[in-house]
Amino acid sequence: MIIILKQDAPEQKVRQFCDELKGMGLEINDSKGSDTHILGLIGDTKAIAESWVLANPVVETCRRVSEPYKKANRKFHPDDTAVDVSGIKLGAGHFAVIAGPCSIESEAQITDVAQRVKAAGASLLRGGAFKPRTSPYSFQGMRGEGLDLLKIARRATGQPIVTEIMNTEHLPLFENVDLIQVGARNMQNFELLKAVGRQKKPVLLKRGLANTLEELVMSAEYIMAEGNENVILCERGIRTFETSMRNTLDLAGVVMLHKMTHLPVVVDPSHACGQAWMVPQLAKAAVAAGADGLMIEVHNDPPKAKCDGAQSLTPDQFDELMAFLKQEIPFFGKELN
Amino acid sequence: MIIILKQDAPEQKVRQFCDELKGMGLEINDSKGSDTHILGLIGDTKAIAESWVLANPVVETCRRVSEPYKKANRKFHPDDTAVDVSGIKLGAGHFAVIAGPCSIESEAQITDVAQRVKAAGASLLRGGAFKPRTSPYSFQGMRGEGLDLLKIARRATGQPIVTEIMNTEHLPLFENVDLIQVGARNMQNFELLKAVGRQKKPVLLKRGLANTLEELVMSAEYIMAEGNENVILCERGIRTFETSMRNTLDLAGVVMLHKMTHLPVVVDPSHACGQAWMVPQLAKAAVAAGADGLMIEVHNDPPKAKCDGAQSLTPDQFDELMAFLKQEIPFFGKELN
Amino acid sequence: MIIILKQDAPEQKVRQFCDELKGMGLEINDSKGSDTHILGLIGDTKAIAESWVLANPVVETCRRVSEPYKKANRKFHPDDTAVDVSGIKLGAGHFAVIAGPCSIESEAQITDVAQRVKAAGASLLRGGAFKPRTSPYSFQGMRGEGLDLLKIARRATGQPIVTEIMNTEHLPLFENVDLIQVGARNMQNFELLKAVGRQKKPVLLKRGLANTLEELVMSAEYIMAEGNENVILCERGIRTFETSMRNTLDLAGVVMLHKMTHLPVVVDPSHACGQAWMVPQLAKAAVAAGADGLMIEVHNDPPKAKCDGAQSLTPDQFDELMAFLKQEIPFFGKELN
Amino acid sequence: MIIILKQDAPEQKVRQFCDELKGMGLEINDSKGSDTHILGLIGDTKAIAESWVLANPVVETCRRVSEPYKKANRKFHPDDTAVDVSGIKLGAGHFAVIAGPCSIESEAQITDVAQRVKAAGASLLRGGAFKPRTSPYSFQGMRGEGLDLLKIARRATGQPIVTEIMNTEHLPLFENVDLIQVGARNMQNFELLKAVGRQKKPVLLKRGLANTLEELVMSAEYIMAEGNENVILCERGIRTFETSMRNTLDLAGVVMLHKMTHLPVVVDPSHACGQAWMVPQLAKAAVAAGADGLMIEVHNDPPKAKCDGAQSLTPDQFDELMAFLKQEIPFFGKELN
Repeated sequence: MIIILKQDAPEQKVRQFCDELKGMGLEINDSKGSDTHILGLIGDTKAIAESWVLANPVVETCRRVSEPYKKANRKFHPDDTAVDVSGIKLGAGHFAVIAGPCSIESEAQITDVAQRVKAAGASLLRGGAFKPRTSPYSFQGMRGEGLDLLKIARRATGQPIVTEIMNTEHLPLFENVDLIQVGARNMQNFELLKAVGRQKKPVLLKRGLANTLEELVMSAEYIMAEGNENVILCERGIRTFETSMRNTLDLAGVVMLHKMTHLPVVVDPSHACGQAWMVPQLAKAAVAAGADGLMIEVHNDPPKAKCDGAQSLTPDQFDELMAFLKQEIPFFGKELN
Repeated sequence: MIIILKQDAPEQKVRQFCDELKGMGLEINDSKGSDTHILGLIGDTKAIAESWVLANPVVETCRRVSEPYKKANRKFHPDDTAVDVSGIKLGAGHFAVIAGPCSIESEAQITDVAQRVKAAGASLLRGGAFKPRTSPYSFQGMRGEGLDLLKIARRATGQPIVTEIMNTEHLPLFENVDLIQVGARNMQNFELLKAVGRQKKPVLLKRGLANTLEELVMSAEYIMAEGNENVILCERGIRTFETSMRNTLDLAGVVMLHKMTHLPVVVDPSHACGQAWMVPQLAKAAVAAGADGLMIEVHNDPPKAKCDGAQSLTPDQFDELMAFLKQEIPFFGKELN
Repeated sequence: MIIILKQDAPEQKVRQFCDELKGMGLEINDSKGSDTHILGLIGDTKAIAESWVLANPVVETCRRVSEPYKKANRKFHPDDTAVDVSGIKLGAGHFAVIAGPCSIESEAQITDVAQRVKAAGASLLRGGAFKPRTSPYSFQGMRGEGLDLLKIARRATGQPIVTEIMNTEHLPLFENVDLIQVGARNMQNFELLKAVGRQKKPVLLKRGLANTLEELVMSAEYIMAEGNENVILCERGIRTFETSMRNTLDLAGVVMLHKMTHLPVVVDPSHACGQAWMVPQLAKAAVAAGADGLMIEVHNDPPKAKCDGAQSLTPDQFDELMAFLKQEIPFFGKELN
Repeated sequence: MIIILKQDAPEQKVRQFCDELKGMGLEINDSKGSDTHILGLIGDTKAIAESWVLANPVVETCRRVSEPYKKANRKFHPDDTAVDVSGIKLGAGHFAVIAGPCSIESEAQITDVAQRVKAAGASLLRGGAFKPRTSPYSFQGMRGEGLDLLKIARRATGQPIVTEIMNTEHLPLFENVDLIQVGARNMQNFELLKAVGRQKKPVLLKRGLANTLEELVMSAEYIMAEGNENVILCERGIRTFETSMRNTLDLAGVVMLHKMTHLPVVVDPSHACGQAWMVPQLAKAAVAAGADGLMIEVHNDPPKAKCDGAQSLTPDQFDELMAFLKQEIPFFGKELN
């Protein structure tokens, strides 16, 4: 961290501040010119908050030079990480497609969709049991019962299952889930991050609607710092001023995440755009941007879907997309699970 | 809700869709012109999600005419609501200042600040025990022990206390808290909203960094729908492209919230700007914008603060601000608690 | 346009308003239910501003059903338009790469880069003569002299040239330019749009940093309404809260533009991200998103560039990218010029 | 400017880079620690673009310490500047209200509004002759003829007039205008900024919808660098994700601008919110935030307005607002012209 001091900072106060920093185990590279007085901190500055530095009256401004994350940092882990989800790998050249309905609605519905997406080439099955909805009057998901139906579908097809957790208290219900999703609205629910970090199942962490890429990686760091390094990141669209689409899919973010971190990155085009007709083209662009996987909503009867029907592909549309992806993924040098 | 149908929608599919809507207890005002075919839904459309309507292939687009919230809606409750926090009222002409440090750090610190802000005219004491921090390596708060110290400070000054909850499992610890805060990052932690809705203490609900005003009111509706109507909204800055301040304080949002809802609205200028020197001017502007209260960070020694020192006023600076507010609040027709 | 009236609007005022609308040549489909009163306007509503409708006290809200653009609208022109730039086609299956330095700096520099990018496969040469810079103290371009050097480079390679206009008064200098660029900061410089609409050369119109896709199409409509229908749209990144990249490239915007309009869409990854290392991957993703062309900054010696060196590829890096694109463009069904 | 070098930067390349910097007349404070290698530049770095620094392969990152603007900078001009508009002062304790219709529509309309707003206490008259409209099919203003009518209204009331310029070629028509407005969409129309900088009339410069405060000040610097230091800044709302209002009024921006620059700052609540009912409350909040003036749209018959009727106050509503402001402005220590 580089700290730029105020030009008129009293020398004694500067000395006190330096002593405080040294008391934290840091070395200081003190560089005073005619015009600028700069402190370069040497050592582990991860625990030093910029707001604490800026609160000192001798400080003009400061800038972090090394990233505030460590376990997720590509600098300390140059090779791609592959996360294994019950035998399906994502990352380090392995690509997987996660597909299924937004909500689990019945045994017939989830099992039917599971069979169709498996036949088309999806290797993981998604389905929401606990649903975060803007309105308390909207369908809130089948909750525990939904999880049971999802497991029944798994038995039918053998696909590992992915589903969202919304509360630490529900964790015991997720013991048998293959990949636990933390949704966009909970990306900075730090107590939940710690809880999924203390268990062993891999975690799919979605980027919040208005969270920077660094904040996303810091949330992965929360999970990893508790001992669970099996984290998959997911870009699912950010909130901007544009109104013709639900959110703005940030594919450049995928490119940047691969520089920042060694973790696999999955893209969810369905939630990003909110409109089924856009999903196939966005899925193709995500592969070209370097994604390690896709998460796509598929429903057997979208107009009857209890949630997000407008963005769900039909099984037939999904078949068509998968046929293309089976060509495109190897074209971009990855292997489809 | 107004539904605009596609011009080439097959009549039979339209009839099926209308039957579905009628099956939900809605009446339909069907208006077919040479150019447009519109359905006006009559009845309670709160539970109908726009995404469900848009998923039907006969639909071109739709627009909600009545608001999707009811208990928080000013239309059904034209008078301002005053929320009573252990004897201190906010709303309906009553103004209150909430002040205190970002984090509780020690008995001496919280008690000292409590006495200073009380003397200056703050009627409620804030202090964070559970701290949501971007980095897992930052100070996470004194947690349960912090709550105990906050209660000690309350005994010293008699001020009701305000503190943030981060997880449903911590709720038993908050039984004795006067006003439970749900922070910006948890504004759409729906399980937490339901939990604080099922208890009786008033709730201070902060707007998320990238949440619309309607989403904020919908989150209040979550709490109210569970039976707890004592909700105070809080504007604390939103995320924009501007980088010279931490966030952009949305004072026009205060004006709009007062049209949308009857609930009191508090402004937190400290978190919005992140810089102590801006806080007094923003606090004054918030009063002029019609706020029902202010939430201001005060620390006895900001450079030593474990969290957010850069945005904390000293007790002396707070004294000066309160002296001005005591004139300004009545100028704008409100009464300071 | 659908107009929703206030429930308590006095009948006489509604009648007056309807008469006004009819006086504009519109028919009205009047639909009054027990709960809602809706007017559906039939006819050409392009010239009716929503702000004018909303200003009438009988109006609750309104919604445009048909798009406010006509000449650019895909509905009235279902087939893709190919724009011909001095023999090079973009759109309708034709793909072209525009490459060259941010600024023209000398005859040797622009001619050298021209030869390198031509050899690599770029069919159009870019180079800035008039430079829009945030600071008045930054290099402002070689202006008229720069245009002359660009024409010299064209003679050397035969590539049509693309360069930016900043002011209507400079238009005579652009007579010999093959493709006139209107930059992001001038996307709503309506006098400039009209001026380039009154001449015959094709126009490359860049999306403003915070302009919606509809606003971009409306700016194209300005040019087309003056008689020049040779407009190419360009997505170059939008302004969001994310700070790790200069702007956020909106590739979903490319997909949406192709639905809204029949005009070709080019992507400029260089300005979007501001960092050379990201450009190749973003260029590949743009092809997959359906772009009809790419605009890429190439400089023979980026660290010496007078402008935007950080985002410029070297000629060698550009060679490598083009080798990939020559495979990828046909993979996605387009033909490289 | 602080430049942080890459740890593995070859020494010879670093020396070359330092020589280049010295060749620009800068001194270098070179500070090499075990972990970091920092260059502190001493001298005038205004002309050094960050993108140029970042293009050098030895550079990790850089940070500007001193602001890139000089003439507008409060550091070099600590006292507030008062700009005199034909006898009406704004800034340095002087407050002025600018009022009038969005568009000039007829002699009767502009003269009538002029008389009403003058009687209410507005000291400057606004009216648009050249109108920037999103759609080419919307009313584009009365142009030259409108300017003539505005001057007729000035003769009737004696108020100095304010109106928007959209193109350098129109400048001769503005010779007799008292305050020339550069609108939000032209904030970075640099050729126009230079042109109004080369003449003597004061300039009202509006912030672009997605421009940072620093960019706004840099645009003022463009005008000042040409010799015209009579610049008044105007905050008029920025573009965010919020959809309930046209734009988000950034009152914290007013506070920050007063720190960055000595220039007066005016607030336009009408364009910010787009809804007349919000304007009075926002105007009051702007005074409390420290604005030096207000710009408010008033129309004699808003539903008949050719432009922006929905956000225009009636003369009666304006009377009521001015009665309050006459109390509030002195309460906040300023003097109303």
